[in-house]
Amino acid sequence: MNTKKISLKDIAVKAGVSTALVSYVLNGKEKESRVGHEIAKKIKEIASELNYQPNHLAKSLRSGKTHTIGLVIADISNPFFANIARVVEDEAKKSGYTVIIGSSDEKAEKAWDLLNVLINRQVDGFIIVSSEHSESHIRYLKERNIPFILLDRHFPDLQTDFVATNNYKASYDAGVHLVKGGYERIGLIAYKSDMYHMKERIRGYQQALRDHHFDLNPNWLKQVRFENIEMEVKIAIDEMISSKDKVDAIIFATYGLAINGLKYINELKLKVPSDLGIVSFGQAEAFDLYYCPITYLKQPLEMLGKTSVEFLLEKLKNPDVGMKQILMEAKLIARESSAAKILQKVS
Amino acid sequence: MNTKKISLKDIAVKAGVSTALVSYVLNGKEKESRVGHEIAKKIKEIASELNYQPNHLAKSLRSGKTHTIGLVIADISNPFFANIARVVEDEAKKSGYTVIIGSSDEKAEKAWDLLNVLINRQVDGFIIVSSEHSESHIRYLKERNIPFILLDRHFPDLQTDFVATNNYKASYDAGVHLVKGGYERIGLIAYKSDMYHMKERIRGYQQALRDHHFDLNPNWLKQVRFENIEMEVKIAIDEMISSKDKVDAIIFATYGLAINGLKYINELKLKVPSDLGIVSFGQAEAFDLYYCPITYLKQPLEMLGKTSVEFLLEKLKNPDVGMKQILMEAKLIARESSAAKILQKVS
Repeated sequence: MNTKKISLKDIAVKAGVSTALVSYVLNGKEKESRVGHEIAKKIKEIASELNYQPNHLAKSLRSGKTHTIGLVIADISNPFFANIARVVEDEAKKSGYTVIIGSSDEKAEKAWDLLNVLINRQVDGFIIVSSEHSESHIRYLKERNIPFILLDRHFPDLQTDFVATNNYKASYDAGVHLVKGGYERIGLIAYKSDMYHMKERIRGYQQALRDHHFDLNPNWLKQVRFENIEMEVKIAIDEMISSKDKVDAIIFATYGLAINGLKYINELKLKVPSDLGIVSFGQAEAFDLYYCPITYLKQPLEMLGKTSVEFLLEKLKNPDVGMKQILMEAKLIARESSAAKILQKVS
Repeated sequence: MNTKKISLKDIAVKAGVSTALVSYVLNGKEKESRVGHEIAKKIKEIASELNYQPNHLAKSLRSGKTHTIGLVIADISNPFFANIARVVEDEAKKSGYTVIIGSSDEKAEKAWDLLNVLINRQVDGFIIVSSEHSESHIRYLKERNIPFILLDRHFPDLQTDFVATNNYKASYDAGVHLVKGGYERIGLIAYKSDMYHMKERIRGYQQALRDHHFDLNPNWLKQVRFENIEMEVKIAIDEMISSKDKVDAIIFATYGLAINGLKYINELKLKVPSDLGIVSFGQAEAFDLYYCPITYLKQPLEMLGKTSVEFLLEKLKNPDVGMKQILMEAKLIARESSAAKILQKVS
């Protein structure tokens, strides 16, 4: 293998194009309409084959930037976060940024390790999906003027930039949807958590019931621990369906809760939606392929990811740009799992 | 907020334990049986609350190590890789290593960017799930004596350490399972790829049919492109079920192929397994929750992830340790989607 340093010119010769064009493409400035998708692809492939190394180090010495973003997510095995990571990467790549990712597994201690590792690795800034008890990390970043955007979750007591979903409204919509479908004893299974997004999901559910003059039966609201989800979801469902005022519908506050819940509902041979109507947060292939497709709150995953990158890049360019806080709306996608009671009786 | 540098002693005082114990726990040396889970947890929580920063920099100056592993995966939105990333993180953490992750989206060019970014960030070594056309990256790492372990995919022409699944055997088992279940026209949908793991999945399928004296009907083997999966899986299935010798079972060579295929099979209102028996690689909640649970090849995800970390850490400790190559066996988990034909007729 050739260990001579590969230059833009080497690539240009092999691709049969100008050095300027190679530079243009490899610096991520091409618009597909201008250079042509095929030729851009060819140039990139040749660069990869030849192991071309852009002189990042020289570039970052000049600019003081590393063109790297640190993305800290709460749980990589949750498809919502894995998919949003994919969006963040694609979006950052368009502006010539590389994303390095760490997952905190919902543990503040691990999140703190990751932040430190990534700060030492000189990322230009962070996009963070916070875990519980990590407010102090955010204060730390603020004090040191390290640029960051909170994604999906934020702390109402801290003034920071964030891009998140309106969780109160989403959960409220789920409750109203079930009420209008004729369900009368609507339960919610959420996590036991101090996180604001989780509290908002509970608050939205409660307000929807209140606004429709339903009692808030404490037996219909269950909060389980992340660490013991499988067992506690089973216990929660057992309690919700065994009392005399047993629920006829359940809202799951996350994808993970829904998957555990649906497996148990299958074990119990309960039929969705006739025995139990279901609405869930999150979106996933498992919901589409379930025998009775699951009604879900579609969070604006693409927009959340893209906007977080956009905000961070603006902030990197101009640190004095004003604070940006956006709550985006989720959309309830109604499917068979929450079909109206009256339609079920007819069919 | 207190900006004074937090010491181990500060944490010890707040936790009411000795400084030595705090050091022991925060350096990741505790065995739960010895220190006690609760006290270790408490110490870690206090360290996190106080924003304690272990002096990584001093430690790495002494040792020449950063205690960071770079994990490059092929596609973060594939649950197999997202889950294996979680295993790698957990395992590395036990030895005091932090993992930073990049996803190549199956693109060699992006994989190359990531490797360079992570090399510049001075990771101690790599665990890599390779994408197509990235052999030259591996040669590059070898020449520079940068420690790495290939995970899940390897290149048979390159002598490297790797930890992977025996894909030939897994696919062979899938074919034999369907043959024994009375299926007579068994198809395979795979990716069009030069990657060895994909070729092995095709080879295993073909050998299973040959060994049972079935013709290899070219119409039963389809190879689709990753970039155009949704459309091409539909076309593949259309062709496989419309000819006079239409298939009665399909093996999907990956999770992504199966999800796209099952959605289309639902659209066509074909019944699994009576119209089409199904076996798939990968494992996922979507397979469990499908109306007819999907038979799958369970890859030893935990063991793959753990062993890759173990090999890499050994190599970091002793660069002259011999080369290690392991092929692990997948296990076929038989469920309703491939129920024997004879049992279907009885019921």
